[in-house]
Amino acid sequence: MDRRDFQRSFASAFGMLTLGHLSASSEQFGVPRVNGPRLLESLRLIQSFGANAEGGVSRLAYSDADLDCRGFVMELMRRAELEVSIDLAGNILGRRAGAEPGLAPLMFGSHIDSVPGGGNYDGQVGSMAAVEVAQTLADHALNTRHPLEVVIFQNEEGGKTGSRLLSGEFAERELDLVTGSGKTIREGIELLGGDPGRWREARRRPGDAAAYLELHVEQGGVLDRENIAIGIVEGIVGIKRWNVTVEGFANHAGTTPMDRRRDALLASAKFIEAVHDVVRRSPGTAVGTVGQVVASPGAPNVIPGRVRMSLELRDLSMSRIDELFERLAAIGTTIGTETGTAFRFDQFYVSGAAPTDRRLRALIAKVAADLQLSSRHMPSGAGHDAQSIARFAPVGMVFVPSVNGISHSPREFTRPEHIVAGADVLVATLLTADREHWA
Amino acid sequence: MDRRDFQRSFASAFGMLTLGHLSASSEQFGVPRVNGPRLLESLRLIQSFGANAEGGVSRLAYSDADLDCRGFVMELMRRAELEVSIDLAGNILGRRAGAEPGLAPLMFGSHIDSVPGGGNYDGQVGSMAAVEVAQTLADHALNTRHPLEVVIFQNEEGGKTGSRLLSGEFAERELDLVTGSGKTIREGIELLGGDPGRWREARRRPGDAAAYLELHVEQGGVLDRENIAIGIVEGIVGIKRWNVTVEGFANHAGTTPMDRRRDALLASAKFIEAVHDVVRRSPGTAVGTVGQVVASPGAPNVIPGRVRMSLELRDLSMSRIDELFERLAAIGTTIGTETGTAFRFDQFYVSGAAPTDRRLRALIAKVAADLQLSSRHMPSGAGHDAQSIARFAPVGMVFVPSVNGISHSPREFTRPEHIVAGADVLVATLLTADREHWA
Repeated sequence: MDRRDFQRSFASAFGMLTLGHLSASSEQFGVPRVNGPRLLESLRLIQSFGANAEGGVSRLAYSDADLDCRGFVMELMRRAELEVSIDLAGNILGRRAGAEPGLAPLMFGSHIDSVPGGGNYDGQVGSMAAVEVAQTLADHALNTRHPLEVVIFQNEEGGKTGSRLLSGEFAERELDLVTGSGKTIREGIELLGGDPGRWREARRRPGDAAAYLELHVEQGGVLDRENIAIGIVEGIVGIKRWNVTVEGFANHAGTTPMDRRRDALLASAKFIEAVHDVVRRSPGTAVGTVGQVVASPGAPNVIPGRVRMSLELRDLSMSRIDELFERLAAIGTTIGTETGTAFRFDQFYVSGAAPTDRRLRALIAKVAADLQLSSRHMPSGAGHDAQSIARFAPVGMVFVPSVNGISHSPREFTRPEHIVAGADVLVATLLTADREHWA
Repeated sequence: MDRRDFQRSFASAFGMLTLGHLSASSEQFGVPRVNGPRLLESLRLIQSFGANAEGGVSRLAYSDADLDCRGFVMELMRRAELEVSIDLAGNILGRRAGAEPGLAPLMFGSHIDSVPGGGNYDGQVGSMAAVEVAQTLADHALNTRHPLEVVIFQNEEGGKTGSRLLSGEFAERELDLVTGSGKTIREGIELLGGDPGRWREARRRPGDAAAYLELHVEQGGVLDRENIAIGIVEGIVGIKRWNVTVEGFANHAGTTPMDRRRDALLASAKFIEAVHDVVRRSPGTAVGTVGQVVASPGAPNVIPGRVRMSLELRDLSMSRIDELFERLAAIGTTIGTETGTAFRFDQFYVSGAAPTDRRLRALIAKVAADLQLSSRHMPSGAGHDAQSIARFAPVGMVFVPSVNGISHSPREFTRPEHIVAGADVLVATLLTADREHWA
């Protein structure tokens, strides 16, 4: 959409919201419920920013669509009586004062940027729900003990830039990385209204936030399959990745008998099966994936002499990942002996597991039960901004079902009733935490 | 080497050959033996044409090295009292008249072009042995009943161009194919002294040759491992190749539990193992290879949704190939059912099996036994010019051992005693066939 279209849709968007469904809010169990239709309408409206032909959005961080959408969201935040600002990292902050001076803020939010060819739910459900929670509190003139801070993190999809600037995980050299939008992160921060020259000052320390809550679509199919409304996230899984190199001997596919081959691809095939079998048979929710494979020389008439594969393992426990890896490395050695090949493993990526806060998990479970919503504990296999924030504050995450587990696709879909239920859990958890759990 | 170096080495080559070892020939069992040292010296001398830094040759068809080497070989042929000409296809012919008018010629020969980064034995052993056989007959003033025709086929490595022009398998459009030398086949034929405009007239029909014999290095490790001097080739295997496409479902590697995946690479791994197991367990000498594999989308954190592989099967029997394929296709279907994927097979290449002549095989076996050389029957897993010639004449092929089965590499090596033994088998087979077997 060009700028003029944007102005038009921006104006009409607020027109519709103003004409909207304020009357639908209700109050139960001592905490208010969000205005479901208004939340769904907000979600519908932001679909126009970066709308793609397939019905999803391509709203890469730092793109025009991202900038326009941020403008729209900031206006929604102001209407929700939030004091809106951009922090040094380029994140949008919307503050609401608390009754007790000296308390650290309760943070909640998500992101509105998307992958190329993304859908309408990832990040957006949590962002619009956070704004809706603020609007609900404003509607009810509810005051909290803690200050509240709605955060819309920048460039989640391109590497959790906004939240990692807060957590201190960001590195200077990342400023010059070119993102999917074509702009560097430095240019992006500047464009969003942050200050790339002062990125270090964006960092927050333990004590700077009382807690962080995030509502997000599951991006997997567990809740949908089990027909459960609320996922209580146990933590964001840790990830390790290796390049696996298998050295055999390239030879003529016609003149080398089957029993004289040192076929690196045959050895790799046995390993790929082992990854699946070992991880699947092990108790727990670990996952293991071989997603890349390159066989050399790569001709139909030459026995592959060398294969390079990726190996990725994810689990809530880093030591469990290491344990699985040790077993797989040993299996590689055995396969090597049997096939006349040699396996080498080079770790090239590690992302630490980020457990959520035990008290917040218990609170989410209680809130869901009070609201008569089915729930289950589960890991988050995907990364989230909450993972960064966990480095300086207790975090809680609420998942709502993704139909068929489809994610990062225009076909991703979460049912309206689940979105509203998730937002109700968010507001209730927030208010209960404010009241009961944190000094 | 530049032209001046070539002139120098050319002159010195003939100097050495003239000073050579003519006295070493001997006669046993009623047929002469070749002059072994002279044969080995010829082989040594042609190493300089296209010599590469690794000790092998890069003598691509139509390159300067190929042209220079052909000049050298033609001079050797003239010294062997052959009447040298270039046929319309660009092959070198060296004729020696026979005693009985009206008999079709007995052909024998090989090729002198190489792959890029090739070795010093492939094609060259058979070519130099053929010239040595002619020289031996000249030395002994032996006359055959049939005319003899030494053939050095052009561009064997680039697609058996010279022999396929004789067999009628060549197609007009191939004239414009660009070869490894950078020249088209049309330009190449012209350069060699053939006539690309009259390529159809190069074709030979059944009856145009009494038989064709070729000595070649095995290019596999069977004879070397079993310590056998002579391979009696049962035929050149047929080849079929398929593109195998496996369709699964690409999904998030973090959020998709192990038991909910439709992993196209896991399915492919099971299939690659099945190819090896089924072909290896089946009786006979069939080989099956998966040499290419491409997994999409090909990221460490995405479960592969699609894999494309090559499947190649080779056997002396085309129906055996079809039988193995049917079994593998059925296994693909089963794997597909088990893994939630679908297999599709698209055949893209077929090369018919070319059996050698039963009487010539028996003759080679008898000659080897007479010469007290160990021998065994075996298929040729690699393609050869003999395969084309089999379309219009009975063919026989003699293999000598390749140390460690190494081929198409500067490291290919055949022991001198095996080269000389192979040439002895060639001359004895030729003379016996001339005397006993063909009218």
